[in-house]
Amino acid sequence: MLTGAIFLHDAFTYTDKHIDGVPVAPLALNPERGGPKNLPVVKSYLSDLEDSEQSELCEKPHLVIVGGGWGAIGVINTLKTGDYHVTVVSPETYTTFTPLLPSAAVGTVQIRSLVEPLRKVIARLHGHLLHGKAIDLVMSERLLEVETVTTEGEKVNIYVPYDKIIIAVGSTAATHGVPGLENCYQLKTVGDAQKIRQRIIDNFEVASLPTTSAEERRRLLSFVVCGGGPTGVETAAEMYDLCQEDIMNYYPKMCRQDVSITVIQSREHILNTYSEAISQYAEKKFMHDGVGLVTNARVAAVTPTSVIYTKKGADGKPESHEIPTNFVLWSTGIAMNPFVARLSSLLPNQVHRKAIEVDAHLRVKGAPMGEVYAIGDASTIETSIVSHLLDLVDESDKNKDGKIDFEEWEDMVQKIKKRIPMSEEHLSRVRELFDLYDSDADNSLNLNELAVLLQEIGHKITALPATAQVAAQQGKYLGRKLSKVARQRSVLAANGLTTEAGVDEAVSSPFRYLHLGSLA
Amino acid sequence: MLTGAIFLHDAFTYTDKHIDGVPVAPLALNPERGGPKNLPVVKSYLSDLEDSEQSELCEKPHLVIVGGGWGAIGVINTLKTGDYHVTVVSPETYTTFTPLLPSAAVGTVQIRSLVEPLRKVIARLHGHLLHGKAIDLVMSERLLEVETVTTEGEKVNIYVPYDKIIIAVGSTAATHGVPGLENCYQLKTVGDAQKIRQRIIDNFEVASLPTTSAEERRRLLSFVVCGGGPTGVETAAEMYDLCQEDIMNYYPKMCRQDVSITVIQSREHILNTYSEAISQYAEKKFMHDGVGLVTNARVAAVTPTSVIYTKKGADGKPESHEIPTNFVLWSTGIAMNPFVARLSSLLPNQVHRKAIEVDAHLRVKGAPMGEVYAIGDASTIETSIVSHLLDLVDESDKNKDGKIDFEEWEDMVQKIKKRIPMSEEHLSRVRELFDLYDSDADNSLNLNELAVLLQEIGHKITALPATAQVAAQQGKYLGRKLSKVARQRSVLAANGLTTEAGVDEAVSSPFRYLHLGSLA
Repeated sequence: MLTGAIFLHDAFTYTDKHIDGVPVAPLALNPERGGPKNLPVVKSYLSDLEDSEQSELCEKPHLVIVGGGWGAIGVINTLKTGDYHVTVVSPETYTTFTPLLPSAAVGTVQIRSLVEPLRKVIARLHGHLLHGKAIDLVMSERLLEVETVTTEGEKVNIYVPYDKIIIAVGSTAATHGVPGLENCYQLKTVGDAQKIRQRIIDNFEVASLPTTSAEERRRLLSFVVCGGGPTGVETAAEMYDLCQEDIMNYYPKMCRQDVSITVIQSREHILNTYSEAISQYAEKKFMHDGVGLVTNARVAAVTPTSVIYTKKGADGKPESHEIPTNFVLWSTGIAMNPFVARLSSLLPNQVHRKAIEVDAHLRVKGAPMGEVYAIGDASTIETSIVSHLLDLVDESDKNKDGKIDFEEWEDMVQKIKKRIPMSEEHLSRVRELFDLYDSDADNSLNLNELAVLLQEIGHKITALPATAQVAAQQGKYLGRKLSKVARQRSVLAANGLTTEAGVDEAVSSPFRYLHLGSLA
Repeated sequence: MLTGAIFLHDAFTYTDKHIDGVPVAPLALNPERGGPKNLPVVKSYLSDLEDSEQSELCEKPHLVIVGGGWGAIGVINTLKTGDYHVTVVSPETYTTFTPLLPSAAVGTVQIRSLVEPLRKVIARLHGHLLHGKAIDLVMSERLLEVETVTTEGEKVNIYVPYDKIIIAVGSTAATHGVPGLENCYQLKTVGDAQKIRQRIIDNFEVASLPTTSAEERRRLLSFVVCGGGPTGVETAAEMYDLCQEDIMNYYPKMCRQDVSITVIQSREHILNTYSEAISQYAEKKFMHDGVGLVTNARVAAVTPTSVIYTKKGADGKPESHEIPTNFVLWSTGIAMNPFVARLSSLLPNQVHRKAIEVDAHLRVKGAPMGEVYAIGDASTIETSIVSHLLDLVDESDKNKDGKIDFEEWEDMVQKIKKRIPMSEEHLSRVRELFDLYDSDADNSLNLNELAVLLQEIGHKITALPATAQVAAQQGKYLGRKLSKVARQRSVLAANGLTTEAGVDEAVSSPFRYLHLGSLA
């Protein structure tokens, strides 16, 4: 409410009286400093005491969610109100319905319909939004370092304390070391979609100018997509649609005829992480529509006026090709965001190149148990079974003879499925596997035989794709589980579970992904 | 259509064959140079020959419309298809429903719903859009100089030939020489509205950060509007509404309480060009809402962190005041856009400070008759009657005695009303005026007496406000008239009208403004 004084026909002066209207903790106005860098520590928030619901939450465990995408929204929407004091840390103030960004880029979907203010989403939980970027994690003191920026652009770093933290920051684009990526567009945010739309329209306008040469016009109307994954293919398809209809009828026919769209893919087929049927359908559609497809090609550089790529010629030698263009979309896969890379570097057992590894309960491997979770593109669920070999043998070798007989193997299979649920489909033929890997046919598996078996099964597991669907399901799973953890804490304590170590297992099964079909 | 070759699994190569598909004039591909600066002259357009409708239009008079706002749209929507070869020159590719921009700035109206691509609007006329900025006018050769920009940002100037040209470029903001306007926001385009919205949200976010001091928070949430005209008042009111509802409920109460909105107005009242009732209503509403109103004040400077203004104190001496703020909207009236200023400088009889003067038929005064028109904020209709004195006497002094008797005066009044229709309401009491200004009571008006009479009536005429409504009505009037001119050309020629001089008068009455109420 606007309760400031009224300044009619008079000079404007500040009054302090209205400050008294809202109860506020002194710590929220003047945070104490602490932590390894002696930064302000946000123990209390401006609105912590503004009503009784907020005040009660201050006594609850502090849950910090880093990121505002699909994973974070999944958590927020499934957490029960009142279980946690929730803080969302995000460099954006809104969340975006990312799968429709390609449509927004070409204008078939309104951008406003794709976004929702994060503050609105967290209101149900009486949560807090901290507009800033996660920089570092001090796991020993449970402090998240966040970089905030004043409206003058000055950076101010602060610590946000947590009891539990969820890393849901997504990923950045993989560069593959290609030079000239500053000449490319990416499609990660609503701002990106707006820029792309503007660039396409600008290209058409300049192509329509009487002083533009025929060669330059073709370059302006040549659109190149690097990457044959879902985003790239979807954007190429949307661009084709844009060129077919609507606004294009208002440009000179000459321009419409000069349009070319090219997708460059490093693999033999586009959409290669999808089923062959989807991949073939997309290729056929592109062929029919005249969308150029360059496969088995490697982008060597992007210049301000062209894309250079190499592809093996008829003689098997790599040949260099150049496509003149004035619009290049870069969409060739994901890499770790700097915060995730930093977290990964802090944990010696983290060796994955593209994401932080979590266990089947989405806990970051190597971090204090039950305190640090990661979901969505930022994370990848472990697929290695062999690294659990000794624990598994220890648990299943009932007679302690150092070997696993068939009965013990049946038990071990159950334990493997629990630890690595994605192994399930590869463990259905229990007897067959046992016989197959029992090389010395002694009707038991020794450590060597087991190691080979587990390694080979591990290799068969495909990591989950970096999609909105996976992130959202992980978020929902985690939100539900953390509310259960909060509510059953006293029950668990009565049963002797006083640490965070086994709590997740006690209240919930591991995460399971349910594929619901693709938008592309 | 995408008729380019298909490049499946192969290198991308250009083919020239599809160029042959669309007929195109060689001049459209390689424009000749000419004019005083020897620039490319756009005699032919890319799409001129693409179908029979376009080809036929090439033989019609070339009408160039400069600008894409209310005035231009009014012309485009009322012109009949087939009368002119139409080209719209605009630095924007879309037109904007400007009266709703204040709502878009605070987010109550979706931005997409405010814009319409210009190419779509001109499609009915088979018109052309030239994406560029008007720079200069060569009236002797009927060439408009346009600055176009390549996608690399390089400027390329060209000449666009015209038979008739309509200046509808709007205005820029008056600076009044105040320093620091780079610290202000303006609200002229959709881009402005988006930036303002972002700034308001950023201010609220930073105000919510735990490291922001109480003083800084109040500064961040202090919104100042310089100018008490319709845009300023409307924006202040929209900001108040924004702070009352919706998204604001999701920020800490402390922030909502710290919001202040201040309007600084140089006159005694806001909305002073409107009726007193509207002005009073707005002031009462602001008082009730706690929106600060500083009247009779002059903004002296805008700094990055405050607005400084002067206002007479109780002792009559000007006192300096400072309002800490992080958002200043500048909306204090209009000034000539550089192209209009240039045109004005080319015409020695043009002396108006804020706009180009046109006659009652909206023809630019001093430019070749019937060739150059101006409408909307860029123009102002002449209100001076006394400058027509000698012509009027020449026409109405039937007995050529150098004096005007009452019968001649009655005739002259009709002629004045025709030249300066806005004088009408001040000329209703014909006899009374005649007697009042017949100082020597000789029952006739001599030149001196007439000069005083016409001057005083001229002063009573109020110029039309710089509003969307005026621009739109002028555009519609002009579009209808120009279509009549085109269709009656042969009739007019048969009646001896072979020049452009009297054509407008022959087909149409002068422009009359009909006030339809205000949105504010």
